[in-house]
This record gives sequence, C-alpha cells and structure tokens, in this order.
Amino acid sequence: MRMVDIISKKRDGEELSTEEINFFVEGYTKGTIPDYQASSLAMAIYFRDMNDRERSDLTMAMVNSGETIDLSAIDGIKVDKHSTGGVGDTTTLVLAPLVAALDVPVAKMSGRGLGHTGGTIDKLESIKGFHVEITKDQFIQLVNRDKVAVIGQTGNLTPADKKLYALRDVTGTVNSIPLIASSIMSKKIAAGADAIVLDVKTGAGAFMKTDKDAENLAHAMVKIGNSVGRNTMAIISDMSQPLGFAIGNALEVKEAIDTLKGEGPEDLTELVLTLGSQMVVLAKKANNLEEARKKLVEVIKNGKALDKFKLFLKNQGGDPSVVDNPEKLPQSKYKIDVPAKESGFVSNIVADEIGIAAMLLGAGRATKEDTIDLSVGLMLHKKVGDKVEKGESLLTIYSNRENVEDVKAKIYENILIANYTEKPILIHKIIIE
Amino acid sequence: MRMVDIISKKRDGEELSTEEINFFVEGYTKGTIPDYQASSLAMAIYFRDMNDRERSDLTMAMVNSGETIDLSAIDGIKVDKHSTGGVGDTTTLVLAPLVAALDVPVAKMSGRGLGHTGGTIDKLESIKGFHVEITKDQFIQLVNRDKVAVIGQTGNLTPADKKLYALRDVTGTVNSIPLIASSIMSKKIAAGADAIVLDVKTGAGAFMKTDKDAENLAHAMVKIGNSVGRNTMAIISDMSQPLGFAIGNALEVKEAIDTLKGEGPEDLTELVLTLGSQMVVLAKKANNLEEARKKLVEVIKNGKALDKFKLFLKNQGGDPSVVDNPEKLPQSKYKIDVPAKESGFVSNIVADEIGIAAMLLGAGRATKEDTIDLSVGLMLHKKVGDKVEKGESLLTIYSNRENVEDVKAKIYENILIANYTEKPILIHKIIIE
Repeated sequence: MRMVDIISKKRDGEELSTEEINFFVEGYTKGTIPDYQASSLAMAIYFRDMNDRERSDLTMAMVNSGETIDLSAIDGIKVDKHSTGGVGDTTTLVLAPLVAALDVPVAKMSGRGLGHTGGTIDKLESIKGFHVEITKDQFIQLVNRDKVAVIGQTGNLTPADKKLYALRDVTGTVNSIPLIASSIMSKKIAAGADAIVLDVKTGAGAFMKTDKDAENLAHAMVKIGNSVGRNTMAIISDMSQPLGFAIGNALEVKEAIDTLKGEGPEDLTELVLTLGSQMVVLAKKANNLEEARKKLVEVIKNGKALDKFKLFLKNQGGDPSVVDNPEKLPQSKYKIDVPAKESGFVSNIVADEIGIAAMLLGAGRATKEDTIDLSVGLMLHKKVGDKVEKGESLLTIYSNRENVEDVKAKIYENILIANYTEKPILIHKIIIE
Repeated sequence: MRMVDIISKKRDGEELSTEEINFFVEGYTKGTIPDYQASSLAMAIYFRDMNDRERSDLTMAMVNSGETIDLSAIDGIKVDKHSTGGVGDTTTLVLAPLVAALDVPVAKMSGRGLGHTGGTIDKLESIKGFHVEITKDQFIQLVNRDKVAVIGQTGNLTPADKKLYALRDVTGTVNSIPLIASSIMSKKIAAGADAIVLDVKTGAGAFMKTDKDAENLAHAMVKIGNSVGRNTMAIISDMSQPLGFAIGNALEVKEAIDTLKGEGPEDLTELVLTLGSQMVVLAKKANNLEEARKKLVEVIKNGKALDKFKLFLKNQGGDPSVVDNPEKLPQSKYKIDVPAKESGFVSNIVADEIGIAAMLLGAGRATKEDTIDLSVGLMLHKKVGDKVEKGESLLTIYSNRENVEDVKAKIYENILIANYTEKPILIHKIIIE
C-alpha cells in the first residue's frame, strides 16, 4: 500500500477502505507517513468529503492510535458531554452534579481553557483546595461511590488526532466536517464514554457560523457515535451571544451555584435541562426526555443537586462552604460598570469578542503558557433582546487593574443597541440520529 | 503574510495575488515554508485551478527562484522545443540540425532519460567521442558560428520547480494543468529561450491520456509563454504508439540520420516537419508555416540538413563518419525477430509498455543510477493500421543477452492484432494562441 495512491484515490472522489484509513493513521502516528502527505490527504478530504463508513473508520483508527481509558470498573452507563466551544459556557459545572444527583455516573476528563473559551478545570480551581490531580483508582472509586469526579487529561489519548489537528491548523484544513467530527468523537470514545451528548454551538461566537453547518456536524458526530456502539445525541444551541451572564472563572462558578439552586440565568438553565435530559435518558435513568427533565427540575428544587455539588467539591479537596458563602471565591479589586451610551434594545453581543475582552483582563490564556487570574471577568446585566436605558449598566467589569479603557472600548464595539430586536432562540434543534 | 491564509484563499476558490504567489515560491525555495503547507496548497490548486495571470506569476516566480541562462550573446531568436515525453521520440536529434540548416539558432540544453522515455544526450553519446561537456563560452561560440550545439544541464535552474515537482510526485498533485504548465514553462524560460515550440503528446504512452487534457495543457503553456514575452506555439501529437520504428539509443540515431536523408519513417518525418515549421516561423526565418515547411523539405533534399548534422557532431568531438557508415554505431550481439502469432491488422502498440520492454534490454534507466546499453533496443516493422501475416516479424529485438523471453512476453502482451483497424492521426491539432 502506498500513501500517494490513497491520496490520489480520495482526490478522485473514491471511497477509502478500512485498511487504507488504518494504514494512513497508523503510519502518520508512527511517523512513517510524513506531514506533507497527511496535509495533502486532508485537503483532498476537505474537497471530496468522506461517507459515514469512512468517518467511523477514521474515528476508530484515531482512537486506536493511542491509549484508551477503561471505565468498565464504574457501574452504569457513563455518559460524556461535549461542547464545540463557546463563551461563558458554564454548563459542565452545573451538569456534572445535576445528573449525578440522579445517579448518572459522571466520570469527566477535562481540559484547561485557551483563547476566548474557558476550561472547566480552570473554573473549578477558583474553589480553594480543589484539585484534579487524583489517581485513576481514586477517580473510579469516587464515581462509583458518589457518581461524580473530574480528572485532568491523562495518558497518551488519540496521538493521531493531536498530530493531525496541529497540522490541519496550519494547512487550511480545519473546517472539514469529517475531520472535525472524527477528531471530537475519537477523543470522547478514547476517554471511555459509553454514551455521548453533544452541544454543537452555532452563531458568531461558535466555530460553526450557520445552522446548516452546525447540523451537518451534529449529524456526522451522532452517526459516528451510534455506528461504533456509543449512543449519541446532539443539540444545536445558540452561541450568537455569551451563555448566561458570567464570563470568567470564579464568576462562572458563582453562576453555576446559582443555577443549581434554581436561580440561574434563563438560557443557561434551559440549556442545562436540555442537555441533562439527554444524559439521563442515555444513562437509562429515565424513559424519555420529558420524564428526565421533570426529575432534573426536582433535584434542583429539593436541593439534592446542590448537595451533590458540595460533596463533589469536598471529595476533591475543595471547600464546600463556597456554595453558601460565594464571597469566599476569589474577588477582584475593582468592579467597574459599563453604562449604555444610548437607549434601545440590545441587538447583538458578539460572543467571541466579549470572550477576548475577558481574556484582556486576565480571565483567559492567549497562549498555553499564560497564567490566569481566577477573580476577573465580566458580568452581563443585559442580554440580546433586553430593553436598556441610556446610562444603565450593560455589564460590570471585574478587574485587578484600575484602567480598563481597552476592555471598555472592546465592549462598546461589540454590544450593539438598536430600536428593535428579537430574543434569539436558544435551542435550535435536537438531533437524535 | 501567512501561508495558511494563502492556502485557505485558494481552497475557497479565490485568486492569489502576485505577491502571495511570490511569497509562497520564495519561502518554499528558502525552506521557510514547509513541505506540508506546499502540498496542501498544491492540492487546493488541483481542485480550484489558477487563472491565466496566476499561472504566469507562478511560472515567473519559479524562474526567479534560481539562476537563468543568458543567451543574449547568441544572434537571432533562440527557439527551444519541448516534448511532454514519449517513446522512441527522436525528434530533437533530427530537428536540431534541420532548423539550424535554415539559420535558426539552436542552443539546446538537454537531459538524460529516465523510465520508459529516452534522453537526447544518451542518444548522442552513441556516437563515438561526442560529448556535451563544453563550457558556456564554447557553447555560445558554436551556436553563433554553426547555429547548433547541445550542452548538458547546468546551473541551479528553477530550484522551486525541482522541489515542488518532487513533492507533487508523492502527494497526488502531479496531474494539475496549472502546475504542469508552470513547471515546464519555467524550465524553458530559465534556460534562455526567446520562443518555444511545444509538442504535447496524447494517448496511452503519454502523460495526457485524452485530447481534451492535452489541449488544455497546450493552451495553458502557450498562454503563459506569450504573456511573459516568449512567443509560444504547440502541437498535439499522437503517442498511442511509439514514434517512428526505432526505440533505443543507437537505433534512434540511425533513424535520425535516415530522416535527415529524407528516408525516415513517415510519422517521424511528418512530426519533425510540423514542429520544425513552427520553429522556423518563430525564429522569423519564414513568414508562415507553409513557407517554412517548403524550406525544410528543401534542406533535406539538397543535403544541407545532413551536412549540418555532421558539422554538429564534429564540433562536439563526435565522429561524423557514422552518418555515412551507421555500422560504426554500437551494435548489439543478437538480433531476434518477434513473429506475429496470427494474421490481421496491428490494432495497438501500447507505447509506454513497449518503452519498458526496451528498458528491460538495458536501453533505458529504471533509476537515475543505472548505466545504459547504447546498442540495444527494438526496431518495429509494423505500426498501427499495418497488415500483418502470421509468422511475419512484428519487430526485431536488438539485445546483448540471448534469452529475451521476458521482453518477448511483454511485446506480445502489448502489440495487439485485430481484424480491422484504422491508422491513428499523427497531428491532432496545432495551437498558436
């Protein structure tokens, strides 16, 4: 088998066999197939696409390129959730204890944030003492006993995907449905998920700018998951504006606590219930989405979800008293309101730019080496569709520096006010096959 | 400027600017742009093509990536000829002295053969003493005095093309009109040609398998040449079967001598007159193609073309007496006839496979390091469309080994006999703009 023949075959629109896909992924991982052939194949895939069988084969070849996490020692159906990335996306923090309160095992491997999107581990580290450096045995014991634990990324998972993703990033081949779908799914499958819930974001702040692209990606991933024996569902959710009000690590933890109390932002609550219902159904803890939602609302109301969050924090060294005393979370030195310059309706909050504004304060990393300031960020007071009077605060800047003119300028550029606008719809579509 | 943006732009079907093309070619030559970005761009070009301006820019960027040959010290319009490669293609050997006999300056830089196609220098070295190791000054003096000289490939011409061609070969991006056209034209322009005649082969033995592809390539090259100030013409000629009768170095020299005497194979003679007419017109030694052809026929008839060939050989150390005593050329030990197994009409002589049969005898190189046997080869007695009786010789094998069963088997597989067939048309089209 020669790599140049595999490239030419895909270039000519033909279907690659399982053996050919394995030959490529194995050779590329080992380094016997050079980058310049991989990038050429990626570009051919960009133009010619892959059918469902090829996509599943590519996914599994990447799973098999490295270690996989064996979660079989954990009782029940392990459901993982993946978001394609957004701004102020606090869902994991809320979802993990929430579904665990319904005995859905949540064995979460999480990462740190980069660029305008935040990372779950960074957020959790706002809580004094909390750490994800636990052994695999401890991790499994915690999930078996208390249904929820988070561990940092461990092991050499999907090295083929890591290598290919870095290559795609510099060769104009990122934006290809079969390549994105196999990249995401291979990571989830290697991390041991039995079932997967996908939150595919759409809009200005998302990677997929249109509903059509988001749906194509969602369908692709759901098909891959189901064809390789992992029950998979997806929703398409709005990312034209940030989710919830809070952007920043400690601020989002506070918002997660509010949401677990039933006092969270409307959109974050709705998204959590939608995704949570899917997780509960996939874990077979409810027969259908409505029943699942009812149960979730119940554990929020009766405080079980919040109790689970406290237990989760305590189990991993965190101080659970922050839940009742959120002032114990890192606090910024300055709180600076940004008043509206005119009256009207908020018509646009450009999500990725607002994420960058928070990063300018130190809430996020521009490069992997940056350290972050857990206390800083932005707290929106208005969302798209809200009425606003001139002089009323659009948002509060939480900062440890006094001069925030650069952040203010970015905010004014990216929060638009118009005479009339409509509230965006949050859940665009649910995709179950 | 970032290479990834240039790749993405072409991927999205946009036109690359002159600056972007120069940035790529310069960076790739220097090594600041890696192979994996170049191959990804090449694949994007494969799918998205380039317009005429981009093609000319790419050609000139590759010309400017290295040294160029300055032929301005030679009087008159220097016309170069390029063939896209074929089997038994003896045209250069005939054309060089033929047009030089009409005072067209022929300053030829030539290469050696590889694979199933032969090289002009190899063929000329069948003549005792002939060598191409002459200085550039000698080369220019010879052309100025006697209008014809051949020199081996010299200097660091078009390094960008060399690097890109080697990369395309292993990344499935060879077969792209803008990339082929710019590769060929950059080499001709860097070699100092004022005007260029292109012989684009079509059919089984050629790189371009269909007339449509061959015409597209010819038009692309003619447009590039004319747009960068080099008058360029092309013909599309048949390569469904080998050209002429001889395949092999000494055998082709003998055939070239016969053709210069007016006793050559019909197809080779016709091709030489067609290409020669274009060269004479481009060199402004005739006003139109008919007048040029008349003059060429005349110098064949009156012996001036043959005299020029003798002079050319003598000038470069070769023994001119081979022209009158072709038995002085290297002779093989064995001559083995291959009789037809049935009666009928020759319907197919698969050119590239017949070229490989000659290579098996030692007439060509499988790898660059191979040495070749100048005396061996094949001499066809029948061409497509010819009637043949069972037992009649299809061709003679000139060999230095007695057992040629492997060669015979290949020949029987690739010379087909049918009840009826038509002679292929040699000149498919003439393209002058």
